[in-house]
Amino acid sequence: MSTADLGLPVDVPSTALFTDRYELTMLRAALRSGAAERRSVFEAFTRRLPEGRRYGVVAGTGRVLDAVANFRFDAPVLEFLEREDVVDAATLDWLADYRFTGDIWGYPEGEVYFPGSPILRVEGSFAEAVLLETVILSILNHDSAIAAAASRMAVAAGGRPLMEMGARRTHELAAVAASRAAYVGGFRSSSNLAAGFRYGIPTIGTSAHAFTLLHDTERDAFTAQVDALGRGTTLLVDTYDLTAAVRTAVEIAGPELGAVRIDSGDLLLLAHRVRQQLDDLGAKDTKIVVTSDLDEYAIASLAAAPVDSYGVGTSLVTGSGHPTCSMVYKLVARATSDDRDAPLLPVAKKSMGGKTSVGGRKWAARRLDEDGVAAAEVVGTGPVPADLADHQLLVPLVRHGEVIGREPLEAARSRHIAARAGLPLSATQLSRGEPVLATETA
Amino acid sequence: MSTADLGLPVDVPSTALFTDRYELTMLRAALRSGAAERRSVFEAFTRRLPEGRRYGVVAGTGRVLDAVANFRFDAPVLEFLEREDVVDAATLDWLADYRFTGDIWGYPEGEVYFPGSPILRVEGSFAEAVLLETVILSILNHDSAIAAAASRMAVAAGGRPLMEMGARRTHELAAVAASRAAYVGGFRSSSNLAAGFRYGIPTIGTSAHAFTLLHDTERDAFTAQVDALGRGTTLLVDTYDLTAAVRTAVEIAGPELGAVRIDSGDLLLLAHRVRQQLDDLGAKDTKIVVTSDLDEYAIASLAAAPVDSYGVGTSLVTGSGHPTCSMVYKLVARATSDDRDAPLLPVAKKSMGGKTSVGGRKWAARRLDEDGVAAAEVVGTGPVPADLADHQLLVPLVRHGEVIGREPLEAARSRHIAARAGLPLSATQLSRGEPVLATETA
Repeated sequence: MSTADLGLPVDVPSTALFTDRYELTMLRAALRSGAAERRSVFEAFTRRLPEGRRYGVVAGTGRVLDAVANFRFDAPVLEFLEREDVVDAATLDWLADYRFTGDIWGYPEGEVYFPGSPILRVEGSFAEAVLLETVILSILNHDSAIAAAASRMAVAAGGRPLMEMGARRTHELAAVAASRAAYVGGFRSSSNLAAGFRYGIPTIGTSAHAFTLLHDTERDAFTAQVDALGRGTTLLVDTYDLTAAVRTAVEIAGPELGAVRIDSGDLLLLAHRVRQQLDDLGAKDTKIVVTSDLDEYAIASLAAAPVDSYGVGTSLVTGSGHPTCSMVYKLVARATSDDRDAPLLPVAKKSMGGKTSVGGRKWAARRLDEDGVAAAEVVGTGPVPADLADHQLLVPLVRHGEVIGREPLEAARSRHIAARAGLPLSATQLSRGEPVLATETA
Repeated sequence: MSTADLGLPVDVPSTALFTDRYELTMLRAALRSGAAERRSVFEAFTRRLPEGRRYGVVAGTGRVLDAVANFRFDAPVLEFLEREDVVDAATLDWLADYRFTGDIWGYPEGEVYFPGSPILRVEGSFAEAVLLETVILSILNHDSAIAAAASRMAVAAGGRPLMEMGARRTHELAAVAASRAAYVGGFRSSSNLAAGFRYGIPTIGTSAHAFTLLHDTERDAFTAQVDALGRGTTLLVDTYDLTAAVRTAVEIAGPELGAVRIDSGDLLLLAHRVRQQLDDLGAKDTKIVVTSDLDEYAIASLAAAPVDSYGVGTSLVTGSGHPTCSMVYKLVARATSDDRDAPLLPVAKKSMGGKTSVGGRKWAARRLDEDGVAAAEVVGTGPVPADLADHQLLVPLVRHGEVIGREPLEAARSRHIAARAGLPLSATQLSRGEPVLATETA
């Protein structure tokens, strides 16, 4: 059985192959050296935010939990690994029974993060924990990049709704995850039907220029659409002449017309002109949707325009200039010996070159000022100071291999709004700057 | 049955939901207006290349063919569409039998393209052809962006092998497609096991810093790796002190050591130093692999360094600054009436705003100069001039709904090398410039 049988354009039977080959060759060598069972702590974190960004947004945590739960080596995968000589017979035996039995802690989804924040902490044997590196990073790096862009756009949009429309600009399955991450970051709906099906995200969309061009006249097209979708539909008015189209739209649908969509031209100018025309025609409740190559700056520039909602595609699903985060997954501590009860030793890469990291199993907390506003991201390896105990950021997600951190997507979305609101006001400036919180080592 | 049962972190039963909602509401309205069965021609093309790029690379065609073949509306999908009121009962009936029965022509995979090149032409009823828009664009926009970056890197690398290592920097399934596209663009191998499993791409990878840190000493780690993977393995030498690590590596593996990998620091300087050290130690055949945040410019800057192969991650899977193409899918012609034998009428959006396009069903050919070098991309809607008849670019991919354009991935890879070699020499300059061929309208 493979996913090809289900019509997916991929044929990969489990999450276990979303993995770099070296994870498995390290396992093979560690099983042989005897170090594979050493208790280990890996942490996912970034060394920096994308240039100019004030905060990061954790997204994908829920998908990570699914990926961990579904990380299994079934027969076709094991045959592949054997055929390609990725692993030896002893490793194949070990993999056949693979199930992650360790613990995972992490920043809850929707939380904000800063350079050095231990976003995810995976604890288990080296063997069990090392294998998860690639798929965990794939998910967090992609989804968090989209959520961060979405969050900036949501700030720029003020209270106006944002619609995700980027499916055609990214890989067809990345698009589904992008819808999910955009929802966490503050978008309200998506054009992506798979995102509606899989995650319950409200879907939107009515028609493209092709629908107007298909019919002999724009009037025929609008009539057909209103007949089929009702007067509350959104008519696309920029195929031929905008002013004529708006007039025709209101003639056909009446003042109950739901909305008109403008997908090209100078949106600021056109929105004002169309609003005036709609009002003059008595369609005062008809809304204006704009959708042409928007990003957070274009959205902000329309703040004073009579626009009711924004549809965003390319810039959202490509992270608005930063399509990936720079999260890494590093071994930060491991048992001092193969002994089951051996204590943990902090470890870190030491050579020059800027890729060093801080060893040790970390906690993190957000220190607040006297007004309750976040003042610093505090990361430490020792005991948690008493005044920070109630402000810790890591929550349990997996305990002894059992996923305990699942939550509705709405929870992540709400958490993000609260977390962002707890940052200093300058966090939501669109202009480039330093991370709005400094990360302190305790 | 859903993909969740297979352990995939998605739960989408067919490619039909990788679709924007408006494709289905347009279908609903067109079925009602009677225009749904009008014969239609859609074309995928770009209005421009990413800024400064000299040529585009078609990739994803093979995946498009799979997606079209697997575009089916099964019971869970139909129930979802009904529950969400995306479509009405008549549309549900129509969808239950959906199967694309039209024709698809396209630039073959690996071919180069320019602004206005009709990369894919989909012909069928409006109803059948409009539904495919989103998934076709998702695939072409993503895969072609990666292949274009890969092609530039392959040029920069000269004959040295390139290894794709970007899985952790992009969505876990986008990563598999990225490996495939990189292979088309000239990469030789991938760290991604799913890409090996699904597409037969050679996989590579041996160990990360975590493996060294897991062991009590670097010597223990290297010994373990050589024991398990043989002397031909690649040892990662920049965890602690590079010079000491190279010495230890050769002591353990001897001059048969396959390669050392450097993943941080000044690669130009370090490659020279390590090469000298390896030669002094008698390990003259031991290769040097470099892998730290490379892009085409960094690769080019190492041309004179004693580097044997390059591993590339982030910049490859994010399209080296251009993570998506700007391909659109436009209705360019449709029957003049609902009559089955009605002639085709060219159509195009007309309003201002820069998003206009050229109507009519197009052919494309590459005109050569007297030396056989490409001189222009010629696109037309009338008869093909005799001198261009043998240089046409569109090939049949789907005929009457049957996929006839499948080919081994190697064919696309070879085609790309040949297509690039047929361009003027300036095509392979890394510096920014105009498209190397102008697109002429015939």
